Amino acid sequence: MKNVKLTLEYDGTAYYGWQKQENLKTVEGMLQKAIKKSIGEEVKILASGRTDAGVHAYGQVANFLTNSTVPGDRFKYAVNDKLPDDISIRMSEEVPLDFHSRFSAKRKTYEYVIYPNDTRSSLMRNYSYHVTYKLDTDLMKEALGYFVGRKDFTSLTPYRSNENKNIRTLYDTDLFMDGELIKIRVSGNGFLHNMVRIIVGTVIEVGYGKRKLEDINKILELKDRKFAGHTAPAQGLYLIDVKY
Amino acid sequence: MKNVKLTLEYDGTAYYGWQKQENLKTVEGMLQKAIKKSIGEEVKILASGRTDAGVHAYGQVANFLTNSTVPGDRFKYAVNDKLPDDISIRMSEEVPLDFHSRFSAKRKTYEYVIYPNDTRSSLMRNYSYHVTYKLDTDLMKEALGYFVGRKDFTSLTPYRSNENKNIRTLYDTDLFMDGELIKIRVSGNGFLHNMVRIIVGTVIEVGYGKRKLEDINKILELKDRKFAGHTAPAQGLYLIDVKY
Repeated sequence: MKNVKLTLEYDGTAYYGWQKQENLKTVEGMLQKAIKKSIGEEVKILASGRTDAGVHAYGQVANFLTNSTVPGDRFKYAVNDKLPDDISIRMSEEVPLDFHSRFSAKRKTYEYVIYPNDTRSSLMRNYSYHVTYKLDTDLMKEALGYFVGRKDFTSLTPYRSNENKNIRTLYDTDLFMDGELIKIRVSGNGFLHNMVRIIVGTVIEVGYGKRKLEDINKILELKDRKFAGHTAPAQGLYLIDVKY
Repeated sequence: MKNVKLTLEYDGTAYYGWQKQENLKTVEGMLQKAIKKSIGEEVKILASGRTDAGVHAYGQVANFLTNSTVPGDRFKYAVNDKLPDDISIRMSEEVPLDFHSRFSAKRKTYEYVIYPNDTRSSLMRNYSYHVTYKLDTDLMKEALGYFVGRKDFTSLTPYRSNENKNIRTLYDTDLFMDGELIKIRVSGNGFLHNMVRIIVGTVIEVGYGKRKLEDINKILELKDRKFAGHTAPAQGLYLIDVKY
């Protein structure tokens, strides 16, 4: 028995997200099928977390236990051959049996890509959020800082919880220009459902003057989704790294 | 009567190239349909040049004559509404009646994107050429320089010509890294069919040692396609700018 860790890149455009669902095309479903085709074994896959429909990944991490004799670093080649073009394994390696993609994760980093322009981009349509408002990126960068720390993020997820289950630690945020694109990065010990997208939606609203910087602390205190900004769309979001 | 110039961006993945063809999905065909839907007129479109199936554009230029009363700079909004997501008009403007997208062009610039890596990328699959060979980019940059100048490029196109019709002037070339990607830029007064892709294929072969720098002058002198390198695939190529 060995434990194999995979680092995955995928274009989420054509998928109903990560998690396997009956009769829907999902990344996990495709991966499980490809592994079965290559080693003949139906494995149970554990991922660092689910990604929603349309969300992309450069560094999703998943692991599975197997009796296969294929060496850990060769799975990459064997399984890539059976995967569709829009999913690729970037790395495979054998890890200790107690490694768990989700529970062992120490730090996850997401990137969000905004395309601020009067006119839509055809090449970036599935890979960014097109915003026509004029955005103040200095203000947005400052706004991001308000989310850093160990906080109750109930206002930034559709699911309520009364037992402090929505406490997470955001370690770091960044905002930088990459050509015409605005890229936002957030790193934390974990993220609630839609949390990155709601942070980005809120920060964009600060960027075009709908909200003030000071509103952010209030939003967090009120612990109610309805006070935060809109949920930025899935296609701008990338899971880029998981550290263990 | 007015002459309207459009600057177009498109994702060539889903198209059989620029040029209108019966029963095939083409960029020109889509654009003509969208213009008809928005102003009710079937216009004749002139482009700076054709792009092949799978080739992308950030700055293709096209123009058409129309009796429409829509101001030149408003066509962008009217026609974008009728275009599919993977084609977008970035700019529209009225130009003098004698402006011709192809004949008036002074300088065209193409970019070619190479993804050099052991493993394929799912996010870049339609937007780059995946090369697994180890590439010497300094050597490739030097190789590009050999193509600069006023030359007979018969060796770099599938179509022969005996009457000096294959003479073009390459003004400038560049090669730079953008993260993991190798980007090559070539600017010239015009390009023969497949010329950029064959230059890139040849330069890549220099980059992994199959050819020597000195071979390039010989290739050009021999005026025969069979002596040049392979044709790099369409999906790495972008028409980025046309100057008038």
